[in-house]
Amino acid sequence: MLSGCTVQELVDRVAGKWSVCILVAAADGPIRFTELERAISGISRRMLTLTLRNLERDGMLVRTVYPTVPPRVEYSLTPMALELHAALLAITTWAERHRTDVALAREHYDARPTP
Amino acid sequence: MLSGCTVQELVDRVAGKWSVCILVAAADGPIRFTELERAISGISRRMLTLTLRNLERDGMLVRTVYPTVPPRVEYSLTPMALELHAALLAITTWAERHRTDVALAREHYDARPTP
Repeated sequence: MLSGCTVQELVDRVAGKWSVCILVAAADGPIRFTELERAISGISRRMLTLTLRNLERDGMLVRTVYPTVPPRVEYSLTPMALELHAALLAITTWAERHRTDVALAREHYDARPTP
Repeated sequence: MLSGCTVQELVDRVAGKWSVCILVAAADGPIRFTELERAISGISRRMLTLTLRNLERDGMLVRTVYPTVPPRVEYSLTPMALELHAALLAITTWAERHRTDVALAREHYDARPTP
């Protein structure tokens, strides 16, 4: 059973703008903080730090520190996060596939004579 | 290529609270206005009318009027809307499957000694 309200809360929670950006940026493999900063335009350093910490706390990201000088820090998605990324991708794919259909449907609707 | 911002706009657009509720309520077959009103708690008649009209305009819903007295009006999802419903379902399924994992990850994270 799929309750509308649950879906909405969930989408808000997991698909928050910055979380989605991070999931997308890290989907292809481990990524460094500075690389994330560059990949996600418009995010502040503070917001990136905060969102990374939340995703790590949720078990979506693994943070690995390599003992180099200076230490190298990498973030990678957990299997559970990769699954979510795939599910989000299905929605984007849907939108890309049906963009024209939606535009045509609107044109058609707007051209109908008013009853 | 999956851009974070596109995904967010999209999720906001197609997964608006009431749109999702209607997609869910109509997923099993044609449904009448009064049935939708009962199925979706908290929606006003005005908001239901408006959301139905937008979904119809987007080509997501078909509105059929049967010439009875009084006329019977039914709404059913188009194939494209059923696809979106399936994609949304994948996200809910993910959340249900990983609810416990997320809770455990948080407990684990919060119990770590502060570095």
